[in-house]
Amino acid sequence: MNDLKGRDLLCTQDWSIEDLQRTLDLAFEFKANRYDHPLNNCLDRRTFFMFFYNPSVRTRQSFEAAATELGGHAQFLEPKSMRLKTGKKAGETIQDAANVMSRYAVGIGIRILETALEYYGQGHELLQEYAKYASVPIVSMAHDKFHPCQGLADVMGYKMHAGKDLKGKKFVQVWGKGALVRSWCSVQESILINTRFGMDVTLAYPPGYDLDPEVIKMCEENAEMAGGRFEIVHDLEEAYTGADIVYSRNWMTSAFYDNMAKHGVEKAKQIEIERAAKHDDWITTKEWMSLTNDAFFTHCGPVDRNAEVTDEVCDGSRSIVYDVAENRLHVQKAIMALTMGKIE
Amino acid sequence: MNDLKGRDLLCTQDWSIEDLQRTLDLAFEFKANRYDHPLNNCLDRRTFFMFFYNPSVRTRQSFEAAATELGGHAQFLEPKSMRLKTGKKAGETIQDAANVMSRYAVGIGIRILETALEYYGQGHELLQEYAKYASVPIVSMAHDKFHPCQGLADVMGYKMHAGKDLKGKKFVQVWGKGALVRSWCSVQESILINTRFGMDVTLAYPPGYDLDPEVIKMCEENAEMAGGRFEIVHDLEEAYTGADIVYSRNWMTSAFYDNMAKHGVEKAKQIEIERAAKHDDWITTKEWMSLTNDAFFTHCGPVDRNAEVTDEVCDGSRSIVYDVAENRLHVQKAIMALTMGKIE
Amino acid sequence: MNDLKGRDLLCTQDWSIEDLQRTLDLAFEFKANRYDHPLNNCLDRRTFFMFFYNPSVRTRQSFEAAATELGGHAQFLEPKSMRLKTGKKAGETIQDAANVMSRYAVGIGIRILETALEYYGQGHELLQEYAKYASVPIVSMAHDKFHPCQGLADVMGYKMHAGKDLKGKKFVQVWGKGALVRSWCSVQESILINTRFGMDVTLAYPPGYDLDPEVIKMCEENAEMAGGRFEIVHDLEEAYTGADIVYSRNWMTSAFYDNMAKHGVEKAKQIEIERAAKHDDWITTKEWMSLTNDAFFTHCGPVDRNAEVTDEVCDGSRSIVYDVAENRLHVQKAIMALTMGKIE
Repeated sequence: MNDLKGRDLLCTQDWSIEDLQRTLDLAFEFKANRYDHPLNNCLDRRTFFMFFYNPSVRTRQSFEAAATELGGHAQFLEPKSMRLKTGKKAGETIQDAANVMSRYAVGIGIRILETALEYYGQGHELLQEYAKYASVPIVSMAHDKFHPCQGLADVMGYKMHAGKDLKGKKFVQVWGKGALVRSWCSVQESILINTRFGMDVTLAYPPGYDLDPEVIKMCEENAEMAGGRFEIVHDLEEAYTGADIVYSRNWMTSAFYDNMAKHGVEKAKQIEIERAAKHDDWITTKEWMSLTNDAFFTHCGPVDRNAEVTDEVCDGSRSIVYDVAENRLHVQKAIMALTMGKIE
Repeated sequence: MNDLKGRDLLCTQDWSIEDLQRTLDLAFEFKANRYDHPLNNCLDRRTFFMFFYNPSVRTRQSFEAAATELGGHAQFLEPKSMRLKTGKKAGETIQDAANVMSRYAVGIGIRILETALEYYGQGHELLQEYAKYASVPIVSMAHDKFHPCQGLADVMGYKMHAGKDLKGKKFVQVWGKGALVRSWCSVQESILINTRFGMDVTLAYPPGYDLDPEVIKMCEENAEMAGGRFEIVHDLEEAYTGADIVYSRNWMTSAFYDNMAKHGVEKAKQIEIERAAKHDDWITTKEWMSLTNDAFFTHCGPVDRNAEVTDEVCDGSRSIVYDVAENRLHVQKAIMALTMGKIE
Repeated sequence: MNDLKGRDLLCTQDWSIEDLQRTLDLAFEFKANRYDHPLNNCLDRRTFFMFFYNPSVRTRQSFEAAATELGGHAQFLEPKSMRLKTGKKAGETIQDAANVMSRYAVGIGIRILETALEYYGQGHELLQEYAKYASVPIVSMAHDKFHPCQGLADVMGYKMHAGKDLKGKKFVQVWGKGALVRSWCSVQESILINTRFGMDVTLAYPPGYDLDPEVIKMCEENAEMAGGRFEIVHDLEEAYTGADIVYSRNWMTSAFYDNMAKHGVEKAKQIEIERAAKHDDWITTKEWMSLTNDAFFTHCGPVDRNAEVTDEVCDGSRSIVYDVAENRLHVQKAIMALTMGKIE
């Protein structure tokens, strides 16, 4: 029975572990049989709408390719060219947009990140509003809080390389320096899904880079439920020691939104860049990796080389970054097939 | 016999009532059998070009989905990024563009509205020039004068809800206030096609909002031919009383083009917005609707809620706005199938 | 045996004459059997990425249509909205972008011209870097040095009209005045491929419009190898006399890049436009054509009418410009089928 048909996906946390496992199973099948799987025509001549409030590279490429590989078509839409109501400005309401789009498409993907928002959580609220009015599934293509497709692609990569059963593996989510002022979404999704799959998750960052306390609380609950551990450290040696998987990634501080409101987006970015530059040690090097249990190195991409990680590690034999990037395609095909695909 | 093969569609007025009826019949078939109609692959691997001189929401979504559902692909093209000749500026002529595009595609859709034009009628002339040189059908995706796909979607909606035979139904096209400064195209197409289908059409607007006199003359002739009536009123009570269908919609005055030439587009819009704001009564409310024959409420979308119509009416049980929006897809599939589809 | 599978195409010069002939043979087959050739589904549900660093009309239209006609889908991507590393700016490296894209797509097309570059040859270097890291074929969709798809479409047109064997035909590549400040890519590709196919190639331009000396040297070697001739003249009478095919086209001087660095792109264009305007005779007219051997007139488009060529010649019975434009579709389908298509 396909009980995922019609379901939204705003965060992996909203789905049961069985739902997630089933999605991963299908993603592995699609990987093994890229163009000739029995579900490979399940979007036959169907339309999927991709709404990009913020631009993207691999999210657009992989979603559009996913729809194509399932026999459908993903439309690339930018709300900036749509006469949508915003604040007091006249325009179409989300209620109307979502209702009409549900008549044309079998699903809608939405990407909305910090620079298109006024406060943390507003992107999530927008997706929830679309989900409320749309009669077709809403899938997050990365928003301020979560990035479920990345989380699933990550886990798929760990299962490919570190073993099918991830329970008890030490997973380190480590903050990295750099000038790209990244969103919290990939990192929060990562620690959520990895605690659910029973990994021992260590979140490591310099003081001041705290993530959403509600997400942290969920991670603690997930770990308890799955029989794993979740801990936060601010020490690099402690973080790397004994790790099985290392995921290095920059993220902004919670001050970003306020600074954007006060000083504009460019200045807010500049403040983050200057702050991040002070943490010179926070880069994944061969030396730090030597403390690990010959860990795999992963990253959601795009990689900020020689800031988040050295070339040596990123190009090394334990790097799985390209495999994880490829997995985006497979998991998105699985999500689309299960939530939107036609049932023969 | 498919005598629509190769035909342009710039206005429903250019097609016989039999052609229009046949298109609607096929649209109903596509609605009943969305993905498995015998003609559902009639654009198999064919390309349809969509030219957006002006941006759009549902026109782009529904045309691109229509091509996909027929097994083809619609390319989203913006002439601003094309090196086309404009005025004295060097670039490719419409003659060359239309000839070359006819080699690549089975049809071309064009959208061009007021803000991309210098005078009323220029958009229609541009479509006629494309039609002259292209050897494939040109379909209006809304231009300054007409919007044939919307007109057909409207009539399809009325047939779904008000009855297959529309003769003698009172149809009210009523101007609505609001800040969106809308084109004449949907409204003119509406009164043209509705008079042709034998409805008693009442066009209601505040003094100063006259439409194209040639279109009004055609409506009078259409009504006479079809045995219906066409009248213009400036009184809301008279308009709503006894109506079977109410279509509320803002439109600009004929002064817009001159103001745009003199003061620029933003100032010209501001002038229209201020003028429109004076007509506070011109909104479709539950009170006005109570004068009708339990009328259906329709709108071509995007709806400017609480300006053109109240939420109460727009969300009420007699509102058919989402069905009409959906019909855009079905009628456009029918138009494409009949004018561009392969014949087995 | 398909020994073109996996091959890049940056310039026709990189492929053997047999490879080019085979591509042309398949292009002719696709032309004869547009939608039902046995290879017509060889990109079934596969993705092709189109990277447009510079905008385009027919290149985008014809590549996207080509993918559609082969059962696949071409994604329209603009690197300006991609977080790519440029100079010292943080972002994704070409190494990472090319590696990841190779996981999603069966091939990548890239267009990059003068205004997106700092020096002549930089575009070619960029394509070579993509080719180095991508595991799927890289196809030039026009770059600063070459335009292989245009070159193949040209030759296909000459074979259609001037005869299957082109050896000994006099081909004239003549500079044309005009305000469009064109790239060298189409012209350099043209003289390269035409000397390889054994035509007697005359390159005619006013003093100061020299092309890349390395390309000129390759043309001389090509001519010698093929038993034809290659000559450069600055005299129009000499150029046109006895010609079998005339290809008129504007191009910039080599000073453009320096002027762009010094004065910006608009001023650099202005300098070229003023310089080009001095050569009033350099337009293909009926009078010049009367010196030829009833030559065919060709152009890669978009045509700058009444600057590069008069309407009379361009619309005359010997003009093959639309056929050559159509050929872009057929040769690109052939290139994609042979380098990226699935093998049954």
